[in-house]
Amino acid sequence: MILALAGGVGGAKLANGLAQVLKPDQLMIVVNTGDDFRRMGLHISPDLDTVMYNLAGLNNKETGWGLAAETWRFMAALERLGGPTWFKLGDGDLATHVERTRLLSAGQTLSDVTDALRARFDIAHKIVPMSDNAVATIVRSKSRWHSFQEYFVALKCEPEVLEIKFDGIEFARPSPAFLAALESEELQGIIICPSNPFVSIAPILAVPGVLSLIQSRNVPVVAVSPIVDGQALKGPALKMLKEMSLEPNAIGIARHYWQLIDGLVLDQVDSHLVRDLDTYKISIALDDTVMKNHEDQKRVASVALALVSELRAKQ
Amino acid sequence: MILALAGGVGGAKLANGLAQVLKPDQLMIVVNTGDDFRRMGLHISPDLDTVMYNLAGLNNKETGWGLAAETWRFMAALERLGGPTWFKLGDGDLATHVERTRLLSAGQTLSDVTDALRARFDIAHKIVPMSDNAVATIVRSKSRWHSFQEYFVALKCEPEVLEIKFDGIEFARPSPAFLAALESEELQGIIICPSNPFVSIAPILAVPGVLSLIQSRNVPVVAVSPIVDGQALKGPALKMLKEMSLEPNAIGIARHYWQLIDGLVLDQVDSHLVRDLDTYKISIALDDTVMKNHEDQKRVASVALALVSELRAKQ
Repeated sequence: MILALAGGVGGAKLANGLAQVLKPDQLMIVVNTGDDFRRMGLHISPDLDTVMYNLAGLNNKETGWGLAAETWRFMAALERLGGPTWFKLGDGDLATHVERTRLLSAGQTLSDVTDALRARFDIAHKIVPMSDNAVATIVRSKSRWHSFQEYFVALKCEPEVLEIKFDGIEFARPSPAFLAALESEELQGIIICPSNPFVSIAPILAVPGVLSLIQSRNVPVVAVSPIVDGQALKGPALKMLKEMSLEPNAIGIARHYWQLIDGLVLDQVDSHLVRDLDTYKISIALDDTVMKNHEDQKRVASVALALVSELRAKQ
Repeated sequence: MILALAGGVGGAKLANGLAQVLKPDQLMIVVNTGDDFRRMGLHISPDLDTVMYNLAGLNNKETGWGLAAETWRFMAALERLGGPTWFKLGDGDLATHVERTRLLSAGQTLSDVTDALRARFDIAHKIVPMSDNAVATIVRSKSRWHSFQEYFVALKCEPEVLEIKFDGIEFARPSPAFLAALESEELQGIIICPSNPFVSIAPILAVPGVLSLIQSRNVPVVAVSPIVDGQALKGPALKMLKEMSLEPNAIGIARHYWQLIDGLVLDQVDSHLVRDLDTYKISIALDDTVMKNHEDQKRVASVALALVSELRAKQ
């Protein structure tokens, strides 16, 4: 079984590629919930939704978030009423939040609810939250601490990030399925999807016990770089690399992950960086890693899985 | 100034007629909030919405509730997810509930919120809740107590009603504007709209202090019968008259209100009942009281206002 750690759009694309290559019992997708927040009384799990909509084939390919063929009647009516409109809730997307909130209010855990929604979206592969406990990613700028959604949506990632914290992380436990997978004899490898290392992957690794469990297991850990040709395909990963004083390219990614990963998948346009990565003793695979369609997703997934197999063979 | 007490659809129609005849400073519409409930984390005020949508000219004339030209994208998505769909929330209507809930959560009173929404819907006339305190109309059938929405929407008013209570009423206070109007020197009359006497008007009158204040004032109280030709135009008023052992016609209405009202507007098809009403010493006005359009609303409002004037002249 392969464990994939995923956050937003890039993570959801690779997760979907893995789901195309692996059978349902061969894959578990563990998703960041540090971005989860409450709005209008609703529990919103942006990364779980992005992964879920991608695997259901319902994702909006233009925006990267939300549903395809979405309508905005609710939002238009709210705007007419002078309500807050900075967080865009499509009519279909809103139903997901309402149903998730209803099931949580009825006492179900986020794991239960995620599994119920997954089934209702006819998704065969397992999607699990990193934790059933509330963890909130917060970001400090020069002026103050911001909630992740304020930083990401309202402030458009513009403030310089001086510090990132995962509020509540010390009380969080890995979700039961995640913990079971980390301890399972079936675990053959861990793939870190090309999600933002600092705000999508870091919260998952920060859940107490996760990092030590991963390091105690003798399974390969392979990351796919979210930086291609010195650019983040989406989101503030590149800007954050700079703000963390890391190289704003795939080398920065390698340096960030180096104590954790055994393998790194880079885009072939970054092949000139491979020599500089020698010091990190990481196995490198090169491929076209920009995922524009399902075929791309499948190919990158296969490359990452091949690297996992190669590393297992060496062990 | 005229105080109109209103509940659902019939009440909203007459309220709208009064608003066509009277200037904004000549009318206050006090609305039942005993039907208010929470659903999906939202505070829903069905009667306030019905009155508001009617006065904004946005009401759905076919259903009697909700908005005209409503869309149902949210509800369709919720149904696809297997969510609960018995309470129908249109996309535009949902925005009203979300914005009301947001303002209430921010610490505003229901009076404040109602006034803010009224302004946003460009309504000039005052609409006020009967109380800012939570009051819940509950209905007892042979089997048990039901919330009003369960009885009214889910059970379609089918169970026999043995008892009605207004849960929380003993702790409720009239809303500040309602109380001020009841105590105002400007008050010239009170009109009880053709709403359900038992579940729309009774909660308003049951707010502690309201009935005694009305009775202490020397102003005419005029009701418009919600029963025409032995039929309720909408809702369970007729069925409830029978269940309360009252005559299932305008006489039952007169008997129910007789200690409170000075005048009663009946439909002319019920003119044969007038003689039987003699014992109640109530002034009767006859008119076509079925309100199919704005002209009808205006006419019935004028008849009720004329009866108020006539009764004032006699005092």
